Amino acid sequence: MDDQTRRRFLQLTIGTFAAWPFRSAQAEQSDQLIVHSRVPMNAEPPLPALVESWITPTDRFYIRSHAPVPQIDPKQYRLRVTGLVEREVSLSLGQLEAYPRTDVTATMTCAGNRRYEHSKISPIKGVPWREGAIGNAQWSGVRLSLLLKEAGVQPNARHVWFEGLDEIQREDGVIPFGASIPLEKAVDDTESAPGALVTTQMNGEPLTPDHGWPVRTVVPGYIGARSVKWLGRIVVSDRPSPNHYVTLAYKVVRQGTELEWAEQGPIYRYPLNAVIAVPTAQSTLDAGRIKVAGYALPPGDPDASIARVRISADGGNNWTTARFTSSTEPYCWQLWQAELDVSPATTELIVMATDSEGRHQPQRAEWNLKGYLYNARHRVPIRVKAH
Amino acid sequence: MDDQTRRRFLQLTIGTFAAWPFRSAQAEQSDQLIVHSRVPMNAEPPLPALVESWITPTDRFYIRSHAPVPQIDPKQYRLRVTGLVEREVSLSLGQLEAYPRTDVTATMTCAGNRRYEHSKISPIKGVPWREGAIGNAQWSGVRLSLLLKEAGVQPNARHVWFEGLDEIQREDGVIPFGASIPLEKAVDDTESAPGALVTTQMNGEPLTPDHGWPVRTVVPGYIGARSVKWLGRIVVSDRPSPNHYVTLAYKVVRQGTELEWAEQGPIYRYPLNAVIAVPTAQSTLDAGRIKVAGYALPPGDPDASIARVRISADGGNNWTTARFTSSTEPYCWQLWQAELDVSPATTELIVMATDSEGRHQPQRAEWNLKGYLYNARHRVPIRVKAH
Repeated sequence: MDDQTRRRFLQLTIGTFAAWPFRSAQAEQSDQLIVHSRVPMNAEPPLPALVESWITPTDRFYIRSHAPVPQIDPKQYRLRVTGLVEREVSLSLGQLEAYPRTDVTATMTCAGNRRYEHSKISPIKGVPWREGAIGNAQWSGVRLSLLLKEAGVQPNARHVWFEGLDEIQREDGVIPFGASIPLEKAVDDTESAPGALVTTQMNGEPLTPDHGWPVRTVVPGYIGARSVKWLGRIVVSDRPSPNHYVTLAYKVVRQGTELEWAEQGPIYRYPLNAVIAVPTAQSTLDAGRIKVAGYALPPGDPDASIARVRISADGGNNWTTARFTSSTEPYCWQLWQAELDVSPATTELIVMATDSEGRHQPQRAEWNLKGYLYNARHRVPIRVKAH
Repeated sequence: MDDQTRRRFLQLTIGTFAAWPFRSAQAEQSDQLIVHSRVPMNAEPPLPALVESWITPTDRFYIRSHAPVPQIDPKQYRLRVTGLVEREVSLSLGQLEAYPRTDVTATMTCAGNRRYEHSKISPIKGVPWREGAIGNAQWSGVRLSLLLKEAGVQPNARHVWFEGLDEIQREDGVIPFGASIPLEKAVDDTESAPGALVTTQMNGEPLTPDHGWPVRTVVPGYIGARSVKWLGRIVVSDRPSPNHYVTLAYKVVRQGTELEWAEQGPIYRYPLNAVIAVPTAQSTLDAGRIKVAGYALPPGDPDASIARVRISADGGNNWTTARFTSSTEPYCWQLWQAELDVSPATTELIVMATDSEGRHQPQRAEWNLKGYLYNARHRVPIRVKAH
């Protein structure tokens, strides 16, 4: 980052903060987004808008919050790296900015994306996300591995915790949002993507308040819950974070007994997925050739990519292969389009993605109590008129 | 346990030890078992013998070892309970015997049961278990929860480690076999089953050397690897055991990268399963009504039982419901029988079990690197002669 860019970043950062109390990020964004709740802010874009561009504009990017946006004074802000380290690190925003910077394009998605459909198997509590709790952005910041190197990781370190500055009201008190990732992920830097990024910019601008200003983590390939907004503290540890959102949420359980929560490990990677964005459900179309478009997400596996996306208009008997309209980048979704014929007999469209390891989306996904990782083949009911 | 029983136990225990160097448990048992390796001993019974009785006789019970049977002096033997406890406990065999005893019937199964079939998807290293790495026995001993109460568990305790007295030669040195279970499981005692049992007897006799004499754990509902033989030490901890067999084995991974091992939690519960034992694969039968028999295992879920077992002789188009020939007990398999008609057109039999939660065995199971938890519908190829 050159001096000019850094100056611009600081201006934007401070500008955002100064304007913050007088500006409602929520209200501005709700024009573009379907709002599930305002405090905390949970919102997602409508599907057709979502697939208009490979990079999701920030104002169309889904927002997942567990608490109101915290008020942070950028002059007082310090990012601390602590725990099993050789020396504690405490960085002001300016000091963080002085580190070598990395840009990465990566798709973020909520573990609860598509919960609305998932809930039809059997009702599920939680934000009723449709298919839009996903977005692809360019993130800029400092590799987590660099900060860990600076702090010096002790030999018994195994996990890295992230702690937010937000305040979540729970029955048993107020807690910050927290997450952790295995140390192996934290240092799994490749040429194309860092294991994890301590991010200050999204799509070339400072993070907005709703997206974690001034600092958040971005963990390519992992569910959004591991990318902690309003990051205040990084803790190196010999075990996963004891935060509620690691031990008692974001796990695949059926009944939610204490035993089940204890037995299940945290979810890290997101699964292979694909969604039809155009046409939308319940559309009425003319018989003949139609255009279908959507997104496909490779699983959060360092070696997997989307191999094929296929669409069926006859319940899965015949499949049309879609063409990709975006390039293949690690940990990034692909947009796709297909043309196929429909007739008045057509009642639904189905999409099925296959990854480079030969895995495909299941016909049915198993229900789980919290409605996570739903990735069954997406079905869109349509009505077709004869000419 | 009354005095007479205790005397008998001690005699048998000491008797077994005294005779041990001069007796080859392996050789005796190999008459009844298919031996995959002798040192360490890994063996399983042939299928038709396995389903002859609901309680599996000890000499027909599969044996899974990672090292030779250790030589243990029963007079020197001490079971230690240590770690995050209020007071360390060290018990001689006699002291352990003095605790109130619990009997439980529970099915044990290797996580690698059916690896031979699993390996046909893509080759898998490890013991090529057929369908016999499973058995149902009566276990007798002391509830783990009782020993933990005696030791007093500290508030930050979360997991209980088990450490064997065996010596496993690995490239990086000699290690004992180890496992751990969540504390919630350790204390999940119900009227019908303890969360875990510190076991000294199997089927009314002291444990045999191959099955862990003098003391092993039995964890109903969990894969066999969590039931540690030749138990020497119980450690209460705030995290899972760092033993190789918890951190780098007995996990479902695809590639086996360090990242994957770090991301995946340990396997605990075994899955829903069912196997056709009679007729055996490649049998030639006469057309007409045949008898089919086998076992079905409910998943290691405290609330699940086997709801239904169905057999198909025509590739899954028609299904015949089997009748149970054993009672429904928690964490125990059920034996079943069915009669159905076959013709020269019949090429295979398929079994599918459904549990009380509505889950059924999948048509295909996903491959994993170590070949664990294979539970696809079992298929037995047969040949049918016309009358």
